Amino acid sequence: MDISALATPALLVDAEAFDHNLRAMSEALRGPRLRPHVKAHKCTALAARQVAAGHVTFCCATVREMEGMAKAGLGEDLLLANEVLDARRLGDLDARVTVAVDSPETVHAAADGGVKEVLIDVNVGLPRCGCPPDEAGRLADLARSKGLEVRGVMGYEGHVVGLPERTLREQLTKDAMDKLIAAHSQVGGDVISAGGTGTYDINTWATEIQAGSYALMDTAYAHLELPFRQALFVLATVISVGQGYAVADAGLKAFGMDHGNPTVEGAEVWFVSDEHLTFAPSSPVKVGDRIRVTPAHVDPTVAYHERMHLIIGDRVTETWEVDLRGW
Amino acid sequence: MDISALATPALLVDAEAFDHNLRAMSEALRGPRLRPHVKAHKCTALAARQVAAGHVTFCCATVREMEGMAKAGLGEDLLLANEVLDARRLGDLDARVTVAVDSPETVHAAADGGVKEVLIDVNVGLPRCGCPPDEAGRLADLARSKGLEVRGVMGYEGHVVGLPERTLREQLTKDAMDKLIAAHSQVGGDVISAGGTGTYDINTWATEIQAGSYALMDTAYAHLELPFRQALFVLATVISVGQGYAVADAGLKAFGMDHGNPTVEGAEVWFVSDEHLTFAPSSPVKVGDRIRVTPAHVDPTVAYHERMHLIIGDRVTETWEVDLRGW
Repeated sequence: MDISALATPALLVDAEAFDHNLRAMSEALRGPRLRPHVKAHKCTALAARQVAAGHVTFCCATVREMEGMAKAGLGEDLLLANEVLDARRLGDLDARVTVAVDSPETVHAAADGGVKEVLIDVNVGLPRCGCPPDEAGRLADLARSKGLEVRGVMGYEGHVVGLPERTLREQLTKDAMDKLIAAHSQVGGDVISAGGTGTYDINTWATEIQAGSYALMDTAYAHLELPFRQALFVLATVISVGQGYAVADAGLKAFGMDHGNPTVEGAEVWFVSDEHLTFAPSSPVKVGDRIRVTPAHVDPTVAYHERMHLIIGDRVTETWEVDLRGW
Repeated sequence: MDISALATPALLVDAEAFDHNLRAMSEALRGPRLRPHVKAHKCTALAARQVAAGHVTFCCATVREMEGMAKAGLGEDLLLANEVLDARRLGDLDARVTVAVDSPETVHAAADGGVKEVLIDVNVGLPRCGCPPDEAGRLADLARSKGLEVRGVMGYEGHVVGLPERTLREQLTKDAMDKLIAAHSQVGGDVISAGGTGTYDINTWATEIQAGSYALMDTAYAHLELPFRQALFVLATVISVGQGYAVADAGLKAFGMDHGNPTVEGAEVWFVSDEHLTFAPSSPVKVGDRIRVTPAHVDPTVAYHERMHLIIGDRVTETWEVDLRGW
């Protein structure tokens, strides 16, 4: 099918850039050195491509993502890299399930929900989830006393991964991982899980890297000069042309907006409305033209769309359901 | 069902505030004086409540919304208040369908798609869709020459509806409607469709007001001192507690972020991640507590959720599918 046959807005994945990204990452981080994060794409068909690139361990951010991956037969080693208080849906899964815990309450929830394995989630500098490093050992003891297998630790340097200056990223990753290693020495286990696309080749302390954005990329990560290419676009149709501007049919419900406006090559984006993008093109466009819009943040963009279309040139080669949306 | 049984994040509609909003609006704008905009809620069950309040004409922003409303038997008079270049799905609907047109291309698309009625969309100051006022008459002539019934004009004063100062809203609404009235004199027809929640009682020039946000409301519209109450919340669970902050399980995929962060009463929101909200509560919270988060922008918030739960106090009285999502 030609992309001109797609109703707009439509999520496009440039197959060449996507394949490049998977190849570049799997050459840098082979097999289980990478634990791809499915939250970035929420798509089991895309995850199957990551399996084909050699990665069979995954991490998820929601119970729904865990359920969908298990159902798709991708449950060889699933980590819910997030805290939950009702783990019953996890205990029921036909998959190897590990869940992050950072408090006595989440340890109890894991045990009560029938989960068998946990990682101790450690705060390494980002004010979000994770216990203080010096409490990790005690939490591991509690988990083991409840019959849980403690596989190790995780600690996400989320305050570091987006810093544009590489030397600063390197220094702050080391500082964060010092904390995680200290916690690991108290916890034990084989796993030290950390990192993201922005630190995938910097974080050499972790045994596995939780990167997700690398596969599709966005304009926020594009500032970091990583070897990954922009593979994700929103196809839109010009529906109206005004004096010095034009309007396309992709808006606030087609783009995650927390990192700012999406961008259009050769144009200045003025503003985004619910179903409209008003932009000033540098060369004239006409009603009916198709444009490609680059999202500022991949994860909350994908979460708005029911499907994504893999394209080579102007040809749609595959259509994938974004089947891990919701909670 | 008690709301404590809901998995989080979950979209809540406070029934008392919602009923108040519907009553306040239908007392101000009776029957067809209001054409509720379904883009704000994307929910046919909610639209059915608007019908019960006396409004049977609706406007939509997408073809999918039009299809869903028709399928739900709410197609007595549906306006697609947006431009489309492929109107074939509209021509097939079992409903009275009117579509906005602002160019020869969109007139031809409407005729080719089997649509029978149009409104001439006029630019009244917002740089988005709409033809220049002095081209409206010519476009109406073209539409009639193609066999289309021209019902009148529409022109959205979207640059005005959110201005906090009422006197300025009044003045700029008048300026915008002067343009629309001038265009209407060239176009003819019975309909002058305009307005929004921010100008619902100011815009006395339009024959019908296209308001949507009034039913659920958000923090952006709350600044305008309108008689509508906040009815929409996201229920979240505290999953982690740190030093001076806590983390709840509702993030970028649960909130439209273009108007900034959502808010939590009695707390300062620090930042929002994909599935997390980090906030500093003014009084201590503990892991497992439930909090209510108020979205900054209703429309792109609702579009992330599969369903919304109508609540009275802590009791869920109904659950509605958000069945008009996608395109």
